[in-house]
Amino acid sequence: MRAVVKTSSGPGLEMVDLPMPEVGPDEVLLQVKATSICGTDLHIRDWNPWAQAHVAPPLVVGHEMCGVVVDKGLKADGPDIGQLVSVESHVVCNRCAFCRTGKGHLCENTRILGVGRDGVYAEYVAVPASNAWPDPPDMPYSIASLQENFGNAVHTASVPLVSGRKVLVTGCGPVGVMAIAVARALGARLIIASDISDYRLDMARRMGADLTLNPRVDDVISTVMDVTEGEGIDVLLEMSGAPAAIDQGFTTLKPGGEAALLGLTSSSMDFDLADHIIFKGASVHGIVGRRLWIDWYQMRGLLRSGAVDLTPVVTHRFALDDFERAFETMASGECGKVIMFPDPADADGPLE
Amino acid sequence: MRAVVKTSSGPGLEMVDLPMPEVGPDEVLLQVKATSICGTDLHIRDWNPWAQAHVAPPLVVGHEMCGVVVDKGLKADGPDIGQLVSVESHVVCNRCAFCRTGKGHLCENTRILGVGRDGVYAEYVAVPASNAWPDPPDMPYSIASLQENFGNAVHTASVPLVSGRKVLVTGCGPVGVMAIAVARALGARLIIASDISDYRLDMARRMGADLTLNPRVDDVISTVMDVTEGEGIDVLLEMSGAPAAIDQGFTTLKPGGEAALLGLTSSSMDFDLADHIIFKGASVHGIVGRRLWIDWYQMRGLLRSGAVDLTPVVTHRFALDDFERAFETMASGECGKVIMFPDPADADGPLE
Amino acid sequence: MRAVVKTSSGPGLEMVDLPMPEVGPDEVLLQVKATSICGTDLHIRDWNPWAQAHVAPPLVVGHEMCGVVVDKGLKADGPDIGQLVSVESHVVCNRCAFCRTGKGHLCENTRILGVGRDGVYAEYVAVPASNAWPDPPDMPYSIASLQENFGNAVHTASVPLVSGRKVLVTGCGPVGVMAIAVARALGARLIIASDISDYRLDMARRMGADLTLNPRVDDVISTVMDVTEGEGIDVLLEMSGAPAAIDQGFTTLKPGGEAALLGLTSSSMDFDLADHIIFKGASVHGIVGRRLWIDWYQMRGLLRSGAVDLTPVVTHRFALDDFERAFETMASGECGKVIMFPDPADADGPLE
Amino acid sequence: MRAVVKTSSGPGLEMVDLPMPEVGPDEVLLQVKATSICGTDLHIRDWNPWAQAHVAPPLVVGHEMCGVVVDKGLKADGPDIGQLVSVESHVVCNRCAFCRTGKGHLCENTRILGVGRDGVYAEYVAVPASNAWPDPPDMPYSIASLQENFGNAVHTASVPLVSGRKVLVTGCGPVGVMAIAVARALGARLIIASDISDYRLDMARRMGADLTLNPRVDDVISTVMDVTEGEGIDVLLEMSGAPAAIDQGFTTLKPGGEAALLGLTSSSMDFDLADHIIFKGASVHGIVGRRLWIDWYQMRGLLRSGAVDLTPVVTHRFALDDFERAFETMASGECGKVIMFPDPADADGPLE
Repeated sequence: MRAVVKTSSGPGLEMVDLPMPEVGPDEVLLQVKATSICGTDLHIRDWNPWAQAHVAPPLVVGHEMCGVVVDKGLKADGPDIGQLVSVESHVVCNRCAFCRTGKGHLCENTRILGVGRDGVYAEYVAVPASNAWPDPPDMPYSIASLQENFGNAVHTASVPLVSGRKVLVTGCGPVGVMAIAVARALGARLIIASDISDYRLDMARRMGADLTLNPRVDDVISTVMDVTEGEGIDVLLEMSGAPAAIDQGFTTLKPGGEAALLGLTSSSMDFDLADHIIFKGASVHGIVGRRLWIDWYQMRGLLRSGAVDLTPVVTHRFALDDFERAFETMASGECGKVIMFPDPADADGPLE
Repeated sequence: MRAVVKTSSGPGLEMVDLPMPEVGPDEVLLQVKATSICGTDLHIRDWNPWAQAHVAPPLVVGHEMCGVVVDKGLKADGPDIGQLVSVESHVVCNRCAFCRTGKGHLCENTRILGVGRDGVYAEYVAVPASNAWPDPPDMPYSIASLQENFGNAVHTASVPLVSGRKVLVTGCGPVGVMAIAVARALGARLIIASDISDYRLDMARRMGADLTLNPRVDDVISTVMDVTEGEGIDVLLEMSGAPAAIDQGFTTLKPGGEAALLGLTSSSMDFDLADHIIFKGASVHGIVGRRLWIDWYQMRGLLRSGAVDLTPVVTHRFALDDFERAFETMASGECGKVIMFPDPADADGPLE
Repeated sequence: MRAVVKTSSGPGLEMVDLPMPEVGPDEVLLQVKATSICGTDLHIRDWNPWAQAHVAPPLVVGHEMCGVVVDKGLKADGPDIGQLVSVESHVVCNRCAFCRTGKGHLCENTRILGVGRDGVYAEYVAVPASNAWPDPPDMPYSIASLQENFGNAVHTASVPLVSGRKVLVTGCGPVGVMAIAVARALGARLIIASDISDYRLDMARRMGADLTLNPRVDDVISTVMDVTEGEGIDVLLEMSGAPAAIDQGFTTLKPGGEAALLGLTSSSMDFDLADHIIFKGASVHGIVGRRLWIDWYQMRGLLRSGAVDLTPVVTHRFALDDFERAFETMASGECGKVIMFPDPADADGPLE
Repeated sequence: MRAVVKTSSGPGLEMVDLPMPEVGPDEVLLQVKATSICGTDLHIRDWNPWAQAHVAPPLVVGHEMCGVVVDKGLKADGPDIGQLVSVESHVVCNRCAFCRTGKGHLCENTRILGVGRDGVYAEYVAVPASNAWPDPPDMPYSIASLQENFGNAVHTASVPLVSGRKVLVTGCGPVGVMAIAVARALGARLIIASDISDYRLDMARRMGADLTLNPRVDDVISTVMDVTEGEGIDVLLEMSGAPAAIDQGFTTLKPGGEAALLGLTSSSMDFDLADHIIFKGASVHGIVGRRLWIDWYQMRGLLRSGAVDLTPVVTHRFALDDFERAFETMASGECGKVIMFPDPADADGPLE
């Protein structure tokens, strides 16, 4: 089968012919129908310090996907052959104290597809049966592929209470704009979004932001304070990892407010715990992965009920063979989610 | 009456003769029986940058006290004349949205005794009737004076769930050791305490710490990880404001753990949001003041039931006339709480 | 001034000429602009056992209203003369432990307008300044009058988490249909409503119910289970007090679900704690009054943002002089909220 | 092997010779070291209506036990051969939405040892490997056998917040007195316990109750109100299922209080939702089973730290061959937990 592989230490990815994956006793074999690109995949391609520390070539990369079950291991429960599934990329142990107390997203033995074991930019992939989440048969492949990334948005917008509240979303990449849609669906009363890209702010508005601000031209802090009549925001969803955005978010956070942090800072930063957290009596929540499996059930509900429509997030489709152009598009930032199809005939929209 | 006053901008305090305070219609006049020294009072004496920004001389300083009601304004509800009371030092407006929604500790119109209005290092002080908290008539004055400071400890140890959990307390000043006693009373299963002063670590043990660590001689991180069998602590109570302690606390915090931050950093610091909060899926709570009045009711319960005994925290008693020596003792760090008595005859133990 | 008064023990109400109310030092005098009828007012008119036990004639009745401040007591803070205000009918002590810990709705010294002290079916009424909630000057009087009743709906729909969940509302009287609108605004994903009146079910649909059921013709239990694919509902909002509806609600409640109970049963009833609560691991919350003042701030937000529109709930307008017909309309059940105007010129729609 | 079996419909149990259990691929085979009697086992012996509806003979009965792993299925993870384990009696599916969202105690496919599949009153039993909870090798067998029952107590005392609060425990059977010990360990400030058996009240005091009341001689309601200075209790832990106790508990529950209900009423009962829940603004939680596996981790912590000592609960030891006398002792109510040993040589105390 064909697969996109990090063949050796250093920048770049290659399309390679590989034997079909072996299917473990607890696993299912999936024929990949669609797969999407995440910022992590860019880091692995570019071989940045994080990738150098976490990835051991050779490795099939990629972790967002949907596919159809084509084979099952002897012990595998879970979806039947022929079932369309989305994939949870965190393979957890189900045995540690975190896994056994509803905190599987914190499993200390987590292995991530496309990072710690072979990933999904391929025609086929084998994953634990319990990581394959059944989708309705008529779900478009591009939407089904998005679900694990959508789950980050659901997690972030579910930990603080957004319902009835004023929310600031800093960072309007794909997860940011999906978080806007989730906050809207969960009853947020006002959603302000900030990003340095006008392309992304446009996407933010289409996903439900009431007001968008570009720090390159807008004074984020004074505008947020004005719009909230001097009170500030109730909830900060920090999706950028950018120190300036983090500072703007905490500065406009109301005393007693809540912040959820998903965006990863590239290193430690200068941070004022006293002004940003202590004097405000604020609560801050770190967000990692998807809560297994409560966030997946929440996703299912939001999509089925029509409360969230992810269609506007899908902006580009490519054949997997064309992965170089797909990655370039993703790297440009002038895009939402970029979907790749191992079999171009599976594309649910025109390819670029 | 005699009072300890910051008479002008610059270091130092003076004992001054002042007229009796006027009693507003909503206020009670208190004869001060005992008053205690807080770190804030040292800052005001020393005239550090914070004090320069927040204090306008002339001002009677001090904010921790107990006293007896000797007069009441025309409209004043609350305690009767002759009643022993402790004083909440935060005078709040009772009208803003914070005050009206159970978050008076975040009142945007807060004025603090001894900081924003005349304080309690005096023979008499007038305070709003609602700030005077009735005490049992037989409560020792030194204990009654501690209550507002004790309230910081109750607040800190009540926001994260300590019950049944493993707790690290970084910083064993008076509030830190009182937080140890509260965590013990509220059912913490293991309490580790750290401080750079052996004097304070000794006090920590007397207040209920199971294990004490001095970062000058102990490897805090490895010891905490060993004692918790590699899991780390469930709850961090950060009472020091010291960057090194903050780093040790967050490094040993378990994924999914909770931190409550009371200790004020003197400025912004280098902080790793990704490693300390995000990847851990941790929750962090800023702690300021006392929740009005839920923490006061909790205090009352903990003291009445005997679940907390504050006696070991009181280490030094002085006449108020001797305030210079009292302040020196406090500044030395070789002490718990230092209590001063305007009338030495009120002292509930030998004076220094 | 004219006022509707329970003049003596026994059924009936009378329009009576009374002297203007005296205004206490903490009070404001309000010129009543609009007032609405609640089920409680019917009970007082009809002199049912509850009324006999709680009301001591002579008494001006009524507790839902809006008005304009025309005079203030000497000590009264709060709204200025000329301000349009809605009124919180629970006059609480602000001194008990409940009031001081954010639970004023449970104040043990509560006196209710129109029940324990003179009410609002009058040209003028004096209330504590803190009970007068400022409204925008352009808010229609009929909407402003509804707010305290709306607050019951906000309270009920805010205690369990409705956001992202499937909700059953049993009982579609005015509070029930307002709770539907609140649940919708707070992000409920599916709202089913039941009532025995088709008139009310029609109102429920206009306020946002996805599906309405009339137990006289529909099998509520089997339909709810079908619609939820056999899972049952996540949240029950019980607004009827009817044993049959309570039973249907708890029978269809999912294991681990949450119920909020506002509807008052007229007496104790046969209830299966084991099947309805214990085996299900369910959580049940009693709802009384409005949380002071968090629910009022939430109301303000929901109305200002346009997330809730109460217009469809107002179905009838009468002059206060015509109170007998207004009460008959309310008693018929074929209505939403019935509004009365002391001055017919203040009516914001055609009078009946 | 020998096993205590319900051989046919009707009262009674028999010691029977059975072949060794087969060990499924995911299972472990345990040599039973100690097993204890629960009220459910009495119902099955007596063949009451519940037992008739839920038990299909022939069936090995019993569900509380500890034992040593002597064999493992091919796919079984979990404890090694030779490991001492306690057993969780609820065999859950690990696949339904409840199991996958941290609510395994509500699994809709639960099968219970000794009720829905063969139980543990036998020399050997096969259970899923994930149901075998490793114990320290030096844990006394009688204590290890108690853990699943102890877990009910932990669950009950953990759902409402007991820390710093006044608690009433109605019903002092074994789970009730263990709940007293848990509430004490988790920081309850006052624990009142009621039961109609003086034997059990004595056990309650030994497990940490501050005050015990026997409704046959004490006026529970007035005493509780007196002791709490008219306020009532903050938390009710209802462990009896007796209507009179339930009524006393809710009557003395403070407005805004929390109740956890574990005791099963034998049928529906007359209950005043308005007075007991609604007007009080109370929250009521149904408790079933043990939260998988958070309550087991909590148990481990409470036992390891010495915060709870279960020794006083073990009052009688029998050889399993002597099960008839053991059951008679349990039925008398004059006992705590009754432990049976398949091999009398394993007894950790004198046999009766």
